[in-house]
Amino acid sequence: MNPKIKWLRDRIHMDNMQGMIISNPVNIRYLTGIKAEGVLLITRKENFFITDSRYLEEVKSTLTINDEIIVNDIANITRDDFENFFLFCENVGFEEHYITYATYKKYIEKYKINNFEETEFLIEKQRMIKDDEEIGLIEKACYITDLCFKHLCEYIKIGMTEKQISDETEKFFKENGAEELAFDTIVASGKNSSKPHAVPTDKKIEAGDPITIDMGCKYKGYCSDMTRTIFAGYVPVQIQKIYDLVLKNELQTLKEYKDGASIRLAARMVENDFKLNGYDLIHSLGHGVGLEIHEMPYISGKNDNMLKANMVITNEPGIYIPGNFGVRIEDTVLITKSGSINLTKSDKNYIIVDS
Amino acid sequence: MNPKIKWLRDRIHMDNMQGMIISNPVNIRYLTGIKAEGVLLITRKENFFITDSRYLEEVKSTLTINDEIIVNDIANITRDDFENFFLFCENVGFEEHYITYATYKKYIEKYKINNFEETEFLIEKQRMIKDDEEIGLIEKACYITDLCFKHLCEYIKIGMTEKQISDETEKFFKENGAEELAFDTIVASGKNSSKPHAVPTDKKIEAGDPITIDMGCKYKGYCSDMTRTIFAGYVPVQIQKIYDLVLKNELQTLKEYKDGASIRLAARMVENDFKLNGYDLIHSLGHGVGLEIHEMPYISGKNDNMLKANMVITNEPGIYIPGNFGVRIEDTVLITKSGSINLTKSDKNYIIVDS
Repeated sequence: MNPKIKWLRDRIHMDNMQGMIISNPVNIRYLTGIKAEGVLLITRKENFFITDSRYLEEVKSTLTINDEIIVNDIANITRDDFENFFLFCENVGFEEHYITYATYKKYIEKYKINNFEETEFLIEKQRMIKDDEEIGLIEKACYITDLCFKHLCEYIKIGMTEKQISDETEKFFKENGAEELAFDTIVASGKNSSKPHAVPTDKKIEAGDPITIDMGCKYKGYCSDMTRTIFAGYVPVQIQKIYDLVLKNELQTLKEYKDGASIRLAARMVENDFKLNGYDLIHSLGHGVGLEIHEMPYISGKNDNMLKANMVITNEPGIYIPGNFGVRIEDTVLITKSGSINLTKSDKNYIIVDS
Repeated sequence: MNPKIKWLRDRIHMDNMQGMIISNPVNIRYLTGIKAEGVLLITRKENFFITDSRYLEEVKSTLTINDEIIVNDIANITRDDFENFFLFCENVGFEEHYITYATYKKYIEKYKINNFEETEFLIEKQRMIKDDEEIGLIEKACYITDLCFKHLCEYIKIGMTEKQISDETEKFFKENGAEELAFDTIVASGKNSSKPHAVPTDKKIEAGDPITIDMGCKYKGYCSDMTRTIFAGYVPVQIQKIYDLVLKNELQTLKEYKDGASIRLAARMVENDFKLNGYDLIHSLGHGVGLEIHEMPYISGKNDNMLKANMVITNEPGIYIPGNFGVRIEDTVLITKSGSINLTKSDKNYIIVDS
C-alpha cells in the first residue's frame, strides 16, 4: 500500500477511528499524488477516490496498483453504495477546517455516519515532516530560484519598472523548469520596500534604491521561497546599519535551528535584538514550505512547539521604516538532527546592481 | 440605512431571526461595498463590520454615515463584547455554504449563540436580481469586452500563438478601464476548440482553424462574459453546419428569455434540438453573472425556477466534436419584463480574421 496512506490508516486507528473522509485537495495530493477534484475515503478495509468522468483518466494514470486505491466515477455510485462505505465504522474522521458546515451535514446524511470526528489538522501536521523525495523537489525549486536571482542581478538596470522585473522572474521560472510561481513575486523598490506585502508597480528603479525581491516557484508541486534586498547603483549609508542588523539575525537564527530547538525562543531572540536596536519584527519570522507556500509550522513567538528534523521552513527577519525603506532577508531552510541547511543559497552580502 | 442592509434586516426578521453573521466576502461587498477581510454582523439594533488594523482606513473610506455600519478593530473587542452582540437574539443566521465546520463551532462559542440557523443562500438569491447601478456596471464591463473583441479581430494573424492572443486580451482589458480579468481567457484553436475548458497553448493559429475565444473582464467588481468562435483565413464547410446550429439555438433562446420564462424549458429546448441533429449539450446553457463570474441562477434542465426581470445571465450553447473542433457562442444577457437584452453586442455572423 502507498506508505502515506498506510501511515494515515495507522494514525486514525490510534485515535479510535475506522475511517476518514479527506476533502482538502492539497492533502489528497500529498497522500496520493492525485491532482483532481474528488474525495478520498479511507474505509475499514479499502481506500477509494471518488471523482467524476472529467478526471478518471488522469487519476488512473497517476495511481499504480501499489497505491491500493480504488477509483470510482461518482455517476456510478448508488445511494446504497454511499451508505456502505462506512457501514461498520464506529467513528469516521473529517477535516473540520476545510469542509463547510453544509458539506459536513451532507456527508453525514449521504454516508450515514454516526460519529463524525474532527481530526485537528492531522494530515497538515504530518506534512510538516518531509520525506527524501519531497526534500529533493523543494531543493530543485530552490535551485531554480537561485538561478533566477543570479539572472536578475545581471538583468536589473536603473530605469526599469518593478513590474518589468517581476514579469522577468515569472518568465525565467517557466523557461527553467518550474511549472508556476509559488506566489506573486514581490519587487518593491525605494519607499515601496517599506511595505512587507508590496505589489510590483510601474515605479522605475532609481539609483540608491533598495530593491526587495521576494520570489519562489513550484517544482512538481513543491514550493521555494527566498527574499533578498539588493541595491541599485550604491548602498545608502543609512540602510547599511539596518541591513547588517537583519542579516546578523538571519544568520544567528540559522545557527539556532535544529531538531528540538524551541520555535518560540528563536522568534523571541530576533524580536528582542530588533527591540534593543529600536525596531519591531512586524510579521512572523517564518513558516513551513511544501505543497503550499505557507503551511505548518508557523515560526512565531506564539508557537510552543519544537522544530523537528526534516521540517522545511523559511527564515525571514525584516525591518520596515514606514514611508522610507525596508530590508528583508529570507531563505528556505531544511532542519536536520544537528542543525539546519540552507536550500536557497544566494549571496547575502550587499549586492549592487547596475553599478 | 444602506438599502441592501435594510432589505437583509427585513428578510431575516421574516424568517424569525434577529441577527446574522455574514462571512462570505462577496456577500459583504454586495451589501456594503467593502473589499476587506472581516465579518459583517447584523444585530438586533445595529450593524457592525469587524476587521483588523490593516483594513480600517480603507473600510472607513468606503462607508458613509448613511450606511449605518459601525466599524470595529478586532483587537479592541473583548470576550464580553463578543457575547453581547447577539445577547437578546433568539435565532441568528449564518452562511452554512461558506464557513467551515470549525468556524461554525468557533462562532457559536465566541458569540454564545443559542440557535444558529442556516440561511440557504439567502443573500446569493437576492444577488440574482440586479439593481440599476449593478446593471450599469455589468453593461460597462460588456462594452469593454466588445471593444476588446473588435480589437482582437484586427489583431489576430495566422502564425500567432493562442497564448499571444490571450495575453493581448488581458493587456487590452487593463488599458481600457477594466480592473482585471473576470476569468482566465480561453483561446482555443483548431482541435483545441473541441475542449470546452481549453487553456491557451503555444499552438500557432493555422489557416482553416476555428478559434473559440471566451473572455470577460471586471468593471468596479462586476463581470462580463462573452464567447465567439471565429475563423482564420476561411470557414471550413464542415464547421459551417455546426456553427449555424449553435447560432440558431443561441438566437432562439434569447427570444424565449423573459420574466417568468422556465429555465428548464429553455435548456431542454436546446438539448432537444442538438439531439435531433445528433449532438449533445455537454455543459450547462448558462449561469448568472454579477460580482462573481458564475453565480445563481444556473441555467440547466435541472433548474425548476423561472427567470425574473433584472437577472443577468449568460446564454452559451456549444457543440464539441472530440479531437476535431468545437463552436460556442455566448452573450451576457439582461432579462426584462417583456424579453431580454444582449449586453454583449459583438457580431455573431461568420467572422474571418487574417483573410
